[in-house]
Amino acid sequence: MQYQIENLLPLIEEAISEFKIPVYPESLYMPVNYFMGLPGKRIRPVFVLQALELFKKPEKKDANAAIATELFHNFSLVHDDIMDKADLRRGFETVHKKWNEPTALLTGDALMIFAYQALVFAPEKELKSLLMRFNEMSLAVCEGQQMDMDFSNLPSVPVEDYLKMIDLKTGALIAFSFEMAGFLAEKNESIRKSLREFGASMGRCFQLRDDYLDLFGQESVTGKKLGGDIGNSKLTYPVLCSMAHQKGSEFLSIWNQNPESGQARIDQCLKWMHKNEIPKICIELIDKEIKNGLTLLAGLEGNEETKIRIESLCRQLAYRDK
Amino acid sequence: MQYQIENLLPLIEEAISEFKIPVYPESLYMPVNYFMGLPGKRIRPVFVLQALELFKKPEKKDANAAIATELFHNFSLVHDDIMDKADLRRGFETVHKKWNEPTALLTGDALMIFAYQALVFAPEKELKSLLMRFNEMSLAVCEGQQMDMDFSNLPSVPVEDYLKMIDLKTGALIAFSFEMAGFLAEKNESIRKSLREFGASMGRCFQLRDDYLDLFGQESVTGKKLGGDIGNSKLTYPVLCSMAHQKGSEFLSIWNQNPESGQARIDQCLKWMHKNEIPKICIELIDKEIKNGLTLLAGLEGNEETKIRIESLCRQLAYRDK
Repeated sequence: MQYQIENLLPLIEEAISEFKIPVYPESLYMPVNYFMGLPGKRIRPVFVLQALELFKKPEKKDANAAIATELFHNFSLVHDDIMDKADLRRGFETVHKKWNEPTALLTGDALMIFAYQALVFAPEKELKSLLMRFNEMSLAVCEGQQMDMDFSNLPSVPVEDYLKMIDLKTGALIAFSFEMAGFLAEKNESIRKSLREFGASMGRCFQLRDDYLDLFGQESVTGKKLGGDIGNSKLTYPVLCSMAHQKGSEFLSIWNQNPESGQARIDQCLKWMHKNEIPKICIELIDKEIKNGLTLLAGLEGNEETKIRIESLCRQLAYRDK
Repeated sequence: MQYQIENLLPLIEEAISEFKIPVYPESLYMPVNYFMGLPGKRIRPVFVLQALELFKKPEKKDANAAIATELFHNFSLVHDDIMDKADLRRGFETVHKKWNEPTALLTGDALMIFAYQALVFAPEKELKSLLMRFNEMSLAVCEGQQMDMDFSNLPSVPVEDYLKMIDLKTGALIAFSFEMAGFLAEKNESIRKSLREFGASMGRCFQLRDDYLDLFGQESVTGKKLGGDIGNSKLTYPVLCSMAHQKGSEFLSIWNQNPESGQARIDQCLKWMHKNEIPKICIELIDKEIKNGLTLLAGLEGNEETKIRIESLCRQLAYRDK
């Protein structure tokens, strides 16, 4: 129970298990249940409920609404896996691999609809604004995924464009998760805005840490070979920082080697990055975002003890080792 | 102006053109605009507004909400085209053909989100129930599409299962379109239920007519070669009726010929169907559904002149020649 969320997770798991997923046609709902049952941290509904503790004790109906974030996240994963032709998700076969692409497409569609179904558990007087914000968030996630795909065909992109992309693809849902607490507690737009901006900063940190761990983590802890993103020529933050560095042309000559050079190219890129303090630059941006976010959090009304818990959870995620 | 909808279409086209589709990333929103701009009858929002005329004069905000049905319909078409690997839609290239599958996947996702965006133009006090019904309808459409795909791997299915499938895949959205008028006019559940059931009957008719025209239409009018569904061994209502006929084994021996036999097989199937009065059986079911539906319509409160217009529109669609 690393994240002090021992009191929230059972509420969330209960809401997920009680959420009514139909049975027929089994060819559609078996994949839905399969994917929702894969091991996951349920971190987005945890954010909702932990932020809600700023204002009130989370109740069952709050958890019923909060799982909209988890259902939507799973929708986006199922569709992203199709687009990325990924075979594995959380160590298990992806839906399109275990079944087929049309089934995975409909599985994702159904998960998005289920997310909208969960929203109706929110207080009715908030529903219209909540629905509008959920729609904005959903579109943002689609836009981020489209930008991510577009980037994969480009030799490079400006760092700002990359940050914009991760803010959309990853940050928007995390920002929404924190903001959702404001709706569930029936707080005004100004409070919701602070929650949303706090969440946006955290979302950016988590993705930057992802990028960082792929290149600079410890293989024995992450369980993954370092530099996978370099092998795939994926433009992540450390790579774009390296390109933008004053000695970027030196980096580019290594980066632009034939990808067939494989491990040698990865090793040379990593060596160059360490020599030019790219890991430090990455951590500095994470530090800055955390600091921004925590200023917003400190300025919020709400239970002070909960703020400490939220800070602790976010720090653990932003500086996680795997 | 065949369907007497000359006063409603401009309202709908205005709502569609004013609906705010973002610009960036263009790689996502160009395909969305492309698909929404393909020639289409906008028949679902026409149903909403024409049914609304039972109770009140449709206003701009009603049209803004009604286009949720058109946006959702377009979502389902874009995703169905991916699943069916269709090259053409309404005579134009499909999105996945003109761009690529990942883009089409996200285009469909965005269209579904836009449908939910349009819903917020409905009266706020109806929003929760409307959202719940929209979610049910959306899931039904996905279930119908999954069943349709499942059927394509089977040698036959019971006629009842086929009707269930078309009720979900096609009927649910048409039923919802009529029901939506009840929400926009803030009518009670009993009235909405009658509208929904009327719409369900009509939806079934329109699909049955589709099946009929593919086999028994006039090539010079439909502009398509007759029997395409037989060529594709698609289990449509006339085919399943033929299989369920007392001389079904006779039909099966023709149907089960190697599909390579091509036109000869199609011609023999059609000849057998005409000899055994399958076209008549199809028309009888359409007649029965129309009669059911019109009884529901007659029993509704509402403007009598509008009922006549709705009846006329539905008859034209249920007995259309192309």
